[in-house]
Amino acid sequence: MTDDSAADDPDALAERVREGELRLHELDDRTDAETAAAARRRLLEAETDADLDAVGDYALDAEQAADANVENMVGAAQIPMGVVGPVQVAGGAADGEYYLPLATTEGALVASVNRGCSTIATAGGADARVTKSGMTRAPVFRVSGVAEAEEVVSWVGENAERLREAAESTTSHGELLDVDTYVVGDSVYLRFVYDTKDAMGMNMATIATREAAEVVEDETPASLVALSGNLCSDKKPAAINAVEGRGRSVTADVEIPRETVEDRLHTTPEAIEEANTRKNLVGSAKAGSLGFNAHAANVVAAAFLATGQDAAQVVEGANAITTVEARDDALYASVSLASLEVGTVGGGTKLQTQSEALDVLGLRGGGDPAGSNADALAEIIAVGALAGELSLLAALASRHLSSAHEDLGR
Amino acid sequence: MTDDSAADDPDALAERVREGELRLHELDDRTDAETAAAARRRLLEAETDADLDAVGDYALDAEQAADANVENMVGAAQIPMGVVGPVQVAGGAADGEYYLPLATTEGALVASVNRGCSTIATAGGADARVTKSGMTRAPVFRVSGVAEAEEVVSWVGENAERLREAAESTTSHGELLDVDTYVVGDSVYLRFVYDTKDAMGMNMATIATREAAEVVEDETPASLVALSGNLCSDKKPAAINAVEGRGRSVTADVEIPRETVEDRLHTTPEAIEEANTRKNLVGSAKAGSLGFNAHAANVVAAAFLATGQDAAQVVEGANAITTVEARDDALYASVSLASLEVGTVGGGTKLQTQSEALDVLGLRGGGDPAGSNADALAEIIAVGALAGELSLLAALASRHLSSAHEDLGR
Amino acid sequence: MTDDSAADDPDALAERVREGELRLHELDDRTDAETAAAARRRLLEAETDADLDAVGDYALDAEQAADANVENMVGAAQIPMGVVGPVQVAGGAADGEYYLPLATTEGALVASVNRGCSTIATAGGADARVTKSGMTRAPVFRVSGVAEAEEVVSWVGENAERLREAAESTTSHGELLDVDTYVVGDSVYLRFVYDTKDAMGMNMATIATREAAEVVEDETPASLVALSGNLCSDKKPAAINAVEGRGRSVTADVEIPRETVEDRLHTTPEAIEEANTRKNLVGSAKAGSLGFNAHAANVVAAAFLATGQDAAQVVEGANAITTVEARDDALYASVSLASLEVGTVGGGTKLQTQSEALDVLGLRGGGDPAGSNADALAEIIAVGALAGELSLLAALASRHLSSAHEDLGR
Amino acid sequence: MTDDSAADDPDALAERVREGELRLHELDDRTDAETAAAARRRLLEAETDADLDAVGDYALDAEQAADANVENMVGAAQIPMGVVGPVQVAGGAADGEYYLPLATTEGALVASVNRGCSTIATAGGADARVTKSGMTRAPVFRVSGVAEAEEVVSWVGENAERLREAAESTTSHGELLDVDTYVVGDSVYLRFVYDTKDAMGMNMATIATREAAEVVEDETPASLVALSGNLCSDKKPAAINAVEGRGRSVTADVEIPRETVEDRLHTTPEAIEEANTRKNLVGSAKAGSLGFNAHAANVVAAAFLATGQDAAQVVEGANAITTVEARDDALYASVSLASLEVGTVGGGTKLQTQSEALDVLGLRGGGDPAGSNADALAEIIAVGALAGELSLLAALASRHLSSAHEDLGR
Repeated sequence: MTDDSAADDPDALAERVREGELRLHELDDRTDAETAAAARRRLLEAETDADLDAVGDYALDAEQAADANVENMVGAAQIPMGVVGPVQVAGGAADGEYYLPLATTEGALVASVNRGCSTIATAGGADARVTKSGMTRAPVFRVSGVAEAEEVVSWVGENAERLREAAESTTSHGELLDVDTYVVGDSVYLRFVYDTKDAMGMNMATIATREAAEVVEDETPASLVALSGNLCSDKKPAAINAVEGRGRSVTADVEIPRETVEDRLHTTPEAIEEANTRKNLVGSAKAGSLGFNAHAANVVAAAFLATGQDAAQVVEGANAITTVEARDDALYASVSLASLEVGTVGGGTKLQTQSEALDVLGLRGGGDPAGSNADALAEIIAVGALAGELSLLAALASRHLSSAHEDLGR
Repeated sequence: MTDDSAADDPDALAERVREGELRLHELDDRTDAETAAAARRRLLEAETDADLDAVGDYALDAEQAADANVENMVGAAQIPMGVVGPVQVAGGAADGEYYLPLATTEGALVASVNRGCSTIATAGGADARVTKSGMTRAPVFRVSGVAEAEEVVSWVGENAERLREAAESTTSHGELLDVDTYVVGDSVYLRFVYDTKDAMGMNMATIATREAAEVVEDETPASLVALSGNLCSDKKPAAINAVEGRGRSVTADVEIPRETVEDRLHTTPEAIEEANTRKNLVGSAKAGSLGFNAHAANVVAAAFLATGQDAAQVVEGANAITTVEARDDALYASVSLASLEVGTVGGGTKLQTQSEALDVLGLRGGGDPAGSNADALAEIIAVGALAGELSLLAALASRHLSSAHEDLGR
Repeated sequence: MTDDSAADDPDALAERVREGELRLHELDDRTDAETAAAARRRLLEAETDADLDAVGDYALDAEQAADANVENMVGAAQIPMGVVGPVQVAGGAADGEYYLPLATTEGALVASVNRGCSTIATAGGADARVTKSGMTRAPVFRVSGVAEAEEVVSWVGENAERLREAAESTTSHGELLDVDTYVVGDSVYLRFVYDTKDAMGMNMATIATREAAEVVEDETPASLVALSGNLCSDKKPAAINAVEGRGRSVTADVEIPRETVEDRLHTTPEAIEEANTRKNLVGSAKAGSLGFNAHAANVVAAAFLATGQDAAQVVEGANAITTVEARDDALYASVSLASLEVGTVGGGTKLQTQSEALDVLGLRGGGDPAGSNADALAEIIAVGALAGELSLLAALASRHLSSAHEDLGR
Repeated sequence: MTDDSAADDPDALAERVREGELRLHELDDRTDAETAAAARRRLLEAETDADLDAVGDYALDAEQAADANVENMVGAAQIPMGVVGPVQVAGGAADGEYYLPLATTEGALVASVNRGCSTIATAGGADARVTKSGMTRAPVFRVSGVAEAEEVVSWVGENAERLREAAESTTSHGELLDVDTYVVGDSVYLRFVYDTKDAMGMNMATIATREAAEVVEDETPASLVALSGNLCSDKKPAAINAVEGRGRSVTADVEIPRETVEDRLHTTPEAIEEANTRKNLVGSAKAGSLGFNAHAANVVAAAFLATGQDAAQVVEGANAITTVEARDDALYASVSLASLEVGTVGGGTKLQTQSEALDVLGLRGGGDPAGSNADALAEIIAVGALAGELSLLAALASRHLSSAHEDLGR
């Protein structure tokens, strides 16, 4: 219908968008992903003062990215990537020495985490365990009132197997673990919990839940209002995740000899404990917080960007509690992340730089047994977060002892 | 002391690290940033099964990144970048048509936000306003008990000017706006609030607060325990930010004609209102959430990655409330982000791809008047978040009406 | 050993306390409860300017109260008791017309709730259902670290039956329904959930849990630190209760014809919906609240005082969400109390005035089947709370329409 | 119009209600309060199986109660009252030895608090301070959108004096301290903060705010939707109160010699610190709580009932943080109640038994200077709460050391 002779000329394509013949997203139908991205850059460069050379100088496979990760692609954002480690992790799934790639724009973060890793390494490494696991999706249904709501809740309780069959019919890997019910007036929320193995699992959970929700609609008076009713809860700071977990609930801990604390962190177990208590416990309590830590989100975010996780799920990754106890001859420290949502397959994990980063960890793709790669990734990130907590708490605690005029040194 | 003849040979340098002669972070002292990064890649490639070609194929200025944004640099993570818009924004600072770059790995996100932008554009654009502004840092001090705590609180109340002078002595741009006091037992928290203009401002606030904290220590019995006492609260999901704001509190809203809702979003104002009420308001209420929205964090994260903001501050960016009201002939929708922490100078904004993205917005660097660029960025992100909310709510609301078997189409 | 000839003379006994021969609480060992209370009043009258005639003019059985409800008894606080109703309740357990006694000192509260009840009665009564039930107690155990924590969690998962046997060995009525596990660093929390039938159940749950906790200590490396680890969570405002429930999760709802709304509440369904949305949903969201209601705690507190419930558990009773929807020809309203902790046996329910109040409801003592009386009490209180919500929301909504100078009329 | 010859015959009046000639609340118009209450008891006795002798055997002044505290009065609920103390309080307002009356139905509570008081007394008494004070009321206004919202916020910022004049025109005592502004979409919330002196102050704040709200409506485009928009926040568990305070923010603390801890509490400072950390800090953190204490609400509730405070405000009284630190030779403990709403004038404080209880404290009526009685009451309740925390934590900590088979002994 239109003249596609210029299909490989970004400038011509951009011109056609400017003239209103094409819309930005229609470029993908007219040309390959790379040319479409180039055309969009030309358009933006013409319409704004921008020069998009660096954005266009990417190492991604444009077709792949445009197919699975982004629309209206113009190129890539490049986030500096550093590395910390090696650090010994004795986990339930992770076991050995690991380097952890971290992508960040916050100066001093990688150095700080690395200092923590080095301290942990000196202490012989950290333990880590996934203590709960499950990806959730919670549709909301409308009923006529609470009398009907109770009927629906009862039906769900008695028909777990039917819901499981429906949900699992959509997936070869996922398993429905549980369906929790919540009633508020004439709304019924069903929180479906899945084992999604090595996938972060939001898509799998959503598709499976859609199937199960149809069964609920067919068999009960409930009508689906929204496939997500926010009791999931995805990408929102919510107590339900901090309390009950989402994705992996994972803890890392370490006991560090007093001497190592003093040599490496330039402070004492007691000073670190005090900083943790007044800042992370009491301060967070007073702030009405769901995050009782110093900066776990920094490590979560940087590891997520490096390894292709969903950056918006840093929100749930911040639901972490750090504990510190000064012991006679040592410092015990732990960080417990309630809702760390990670995967080693799907999503952004297939992108070039991200899959390379997963290779650094030895965790690209599905694990054996299934789920073990994602478990290991969660455990290593938890150790990274622990390293970050130790280093920042020590910096805060020692700052005052030495000189307040130094750089933050984080 | 050591033989530096191989200072520009990554393989030789990597070998020296392997042999324990050098530590990873010491590479920066021996060679330029690019070679150091290459050496680290060699090392990782040797120690793991990774091949880091894509990570090493970056468009960043390695020296700049290694200097300001990352340590132990190995290269860059590349996040696909798309673009949405143009959308008209009538803001307090933003004014005109804008394209918003979004970097993400979540397929369908950019398309969904773009659909929302297009709907808003059809409705004539959105309004946006920054309604509160201030970057915070809250040190915690130890006192002997509550009797002394009250003395410190009183002293702070009476010496606002001294604290202001001390704090502002460290900065040419920042202004100390307020110092709020909180007492818990023998801990006193002082929450310093600053106008940091076009900078996100954490560093500025930290340095200024360190100076003011010294005055408090000199003049009162209080002893500084930690320069951050978590009432700031940085990178944690905390009610204090959701309630009182941090960075910019910004709202975007729009009134969309009923016909446009039906044509563009394939549903009705009433259906969108119902989805918003049962999901974003009641569902989030039941979840114990601080985020009463559908997926604001998605847009915040993608805009943050594209424009060089701090990815870990997506946590606070998720403190958002979406409201929807079906009116006779229209749909009113708003999203209010309580604590959006953005800047157009400093941090990651100077990196190549990120500063190009800011150029697309016309917001690179300091604004005139100072602070107006960051205000405008906040307003545009808020409009993007609004677009994302509209599109996802409509998808959820219409899904059921049409076919539950379609793709999510978000 | 001491001279007890004056054991029935309050003045003499008071004198001995003043002279240090006896301590206040030892009076119970020397004389009957009534005389001991009188002696304490004499002492307080002598040591302060108080005259305790009214406090001493009580209708309680002093022996009973001193034995089960209070120590160092001096008499009674008298709280004015009113009554609302009758209102028709169609519940899962409650069924019929009920008068609800309310004890309060807040003028206008009873009148307001009564107006709501009368409106509900005109609409044919309210529905109510208990949608979840279970009293909890959550001890915290110390382990050596997360590796051991995971062992304990696994053991608990595999030994549910042993824990059930231990717990239920202590009670003839209670049933252990579930044990939820939570790990934070080197702390393991086990949340035991019980069906405590018609008892509120804290004591039953505590005693049963102590027994089960011993088994955990015997069989695993865990050491009990505190029999309550605050994940119960008793008498604290905690999301875990608001989300997962504690005691009864109960909802009451009603559909009121538009005409009735206008006649009785002097406003419109739309105005009440708007007040509910902006105040109870959006306002509470912005406040970082776990209570999305207008004043449910008022009705909970007044009903608790009247019927012998634990006044401090009003805290959990405030975890309530009110929803309102204007429909074509009617107003739908509901209130969902997540964690209403009530009983009709034990605690304060045996006291004279309280058991009389339970008789007004026809709910004194154990129900048939067991638990049905407490269920019914929860349902009726929920209807009372619904009445209170409707009346206050209507007062707020209509105030502005009519005259802002009237009394609040709540 | 009607025959009032039987106006003093409760049975005849009850009969007229049964026959539908009179409604329950109209009885007050036909006879005195005492007879009306008697008539209602007759009615309830006839319609239910209740016998209301004890409810009718009250020591209240029925006229006074019916006038100011309750409607549809039937009598009184009697709550057993005990007493703890004496305990030395060195407060900002309280100063000396106090007995604290507590009304409760929870056996062992008074004994437990008394044990704590005795321990504190042995340690020389506790310090206490009110560190923040202000009663709030927060109306919600509707605007056309965020552009208008910002105008309203600006107007409020520039017209503080006009609002103060309007608000204070309604009260001879109250002072408007501050007006905080919050915007969510097209809703504007103004949180008015008052110094209400010795009154708890909700009524004063409400009436003053109504007047100020009219000025806002007259001078800006804002329309009042509800005089309370839940950012107050009254009788709901809300972070805004836990963070910013409401009523009095008050802390009590004490340092107890190690020997006293061991003698009186039968445990060690270390064991109490550990119980506090794992239960009150970490456990509450994991529970998503706003209450980081063991059972502060118990003492608040019991003191509120005894002294005529509003029982539903126990909800806010539970926003408390307990800290414990084991020191070389002592235990430091504190409890900080963020939002304790108390008064010594108005409300239930005038009732007979309640005013007698205030006399025991020497705090009935207005203080000199104004506000000092309510301050002192807050301080003494805080010390009572501290005593309760110490005693329960010690019981939990020592239980395990001694015998788990003892009674709870709380």
